[in-house]
Amino acid sequence: MRITIIGSGNVATHLAAAFKNAGHRIVQVYSRDMQHAALLAYHVAAEAINKAEDINADTDIFILAIKDDAITGFVPHLSTFNKPVVHTSGAVDLQALSDHTKNAGVFYPLQTFSKTKEVNFREVPLCIEGADESISKTLEELARSVSNNVYRVNSDQRKVLHLAAVFACNFTNHLYNISEQLLAGSGMGFDMLRPLIAETADKVKEHSPAGVQTGPAVRNDEHTMQAHLQMLNAQPGLQEIYTRLSQDIIKNNNTGNGDK
Amino acid sequence: MRITIIGSGNVATHLAAAFKNAGHRIVQVYSRDMQHAALLAYHVAAEAINKAEDINADTDIFILAIKDDAITGFVPHLSTFNKPVVHTSGAVDLQALSDHTKNAGVFYPLQTFSKTKEVNFREVPLCIEGADESISKTLEELARSVSNNVYRVNSDQRKVLHLAAVFACNFTNHLYNISEQLLAGSGMGFDMLRPLIAETADKVKEHSPAGVQTGPAVRNDEHTMQAHLQMLNAQPGLQEIYTRLSQDIIKNNNTGNGDK
Repeated sequence: MRITIIGSGNVATHLAAAFKNAGHRIVQVYSRDMQHAALLAYHVAAEAINKAEDINADTDIFILAIKDDAITGFVPHLSTFNKPVVHTSGAVDLQALSDHTKNAGVFYPLQTFSKTKEVNFREVPLCIEGADESISKTLEELARSVSNNVYRVNSDQRKVLHLAAVFACNFTNHLYNISEQLLAGSGMGFDMLRPLIAETADKVKEHSPAGVQTGPAVRNDEHTMQAHLQMLNAQPGLQEIYTRLSQDIIKNNNTGNGDK
Repeated sequence: MRITIIGSGNVATHLAAAFKNAGHRIVQVYSRDMQHAALLAYHVAAEAINKAEDINADTDIFILAIKDDAITGFVPHLSTFNKPVVHTSGAVDLQALSDHTKNAGVFYPLQTFSKTKEVNFREVPLCIEGADESISKTLEELARSVSNNVYRVNSDQRKVLHLAAVFACNFTNHLYNISEQLLAGSGMGFDMLRPLIAETADKVKEHSPAGVQTGPAVRNDEHTMQAHLQMLNAQPGLQEIYTRLSQDIIKNNNTGNGDK
């Protein structure tokens, strides 16, 4: 397929590379910032553009990988071409596009992307949704060409998925960050925690997280939890996080299903 | 070495197996519950006992892998043998032992253990501390026989490490748990999140977590955060966790060092 990428950030970069590697042709990369557009366009042998009026009709699909609140505003530049226009956001309804074009769709990669970190794209869950069956089919085919994990997910489901991903990924990474900060000044480095982090994630590849919960809260070890809160006396924000998460673990353990 | 294991839980099980695999001899496994003692003893070809008075002097070291609050109470059963007595806890001071025996030490594996999940023990960070240099040397040698990651860590450092581990491991696993719960009833399973969880952990093998933070909070995407809180309306406990962690991410991003 001929593909036009709108955006040059983390998602745009990884999607464009995956499409290119699968044999598709990236025709244009658009970014407001010409240098950003040029860098990505160079990697995928596309034309770099930074003006919406330079967008070419010579493509099979427009993929919007831009900020959520910029999506709706960009559609008028594309709807005249009568080609599929899809966004890549977990949080934005299909309707944000379908209000403006009948060729609307969603192509949401459920993964965390940073430009400096390669990803095995064939394992990335791709969640697709089309305004009609023809668009869904096109998106499904495109998705299967780059990944083994393709799901049809509607807008309501996708929002749940995105929320779950914030807990499983964004908040988790912040906990890693907190743990690194806690070691600062102790003469011990983050390297000491890396095997623990790897194993914690590895455990849930086969197990359900509830079945492998460890630590003071699940043991209801009041003494250790009090000592930890004491150690965090100068960091009330971390105390709150510690308390809330511990309470939810204890509640979960008692009811078998946590805060629901 | 001849090793006596006091305890039969997750830590006792993995330690005993690692020692046995490295060629050491487990002489006795003690548990209050004879069936628990017998099961572990069987796996490591040791004698199972459930009475403290049956503990044998024919050993080189006593390793306590029992609940934190049971450690001090158990020492009198061992101090008469004049052999090293070490505990395996992140949260308990060396002094809890050295008040009762001059042969006190700590052998703390910084890892999460579940009986049903195998671990590559050679990568487990082992944090050792001895009441004197002779005990430290003995523990260092024993530790190096089972792991490549051996650290001398004093009691204050170990407490910091343990606190950091609660964030990096226990709380992280609970976030996985929350994400699984959020998907319940949506027609989507936890399998969809597994590649994301694996990649989130994989990223920090090389990178510092602060440098690879993604999600609505680090982008300060108010609109998405409000929508997420709305979705959590029926779960005030999760709303609190969402708010606290998001605030800390935003603070971190603004100051470059978070809640400190």
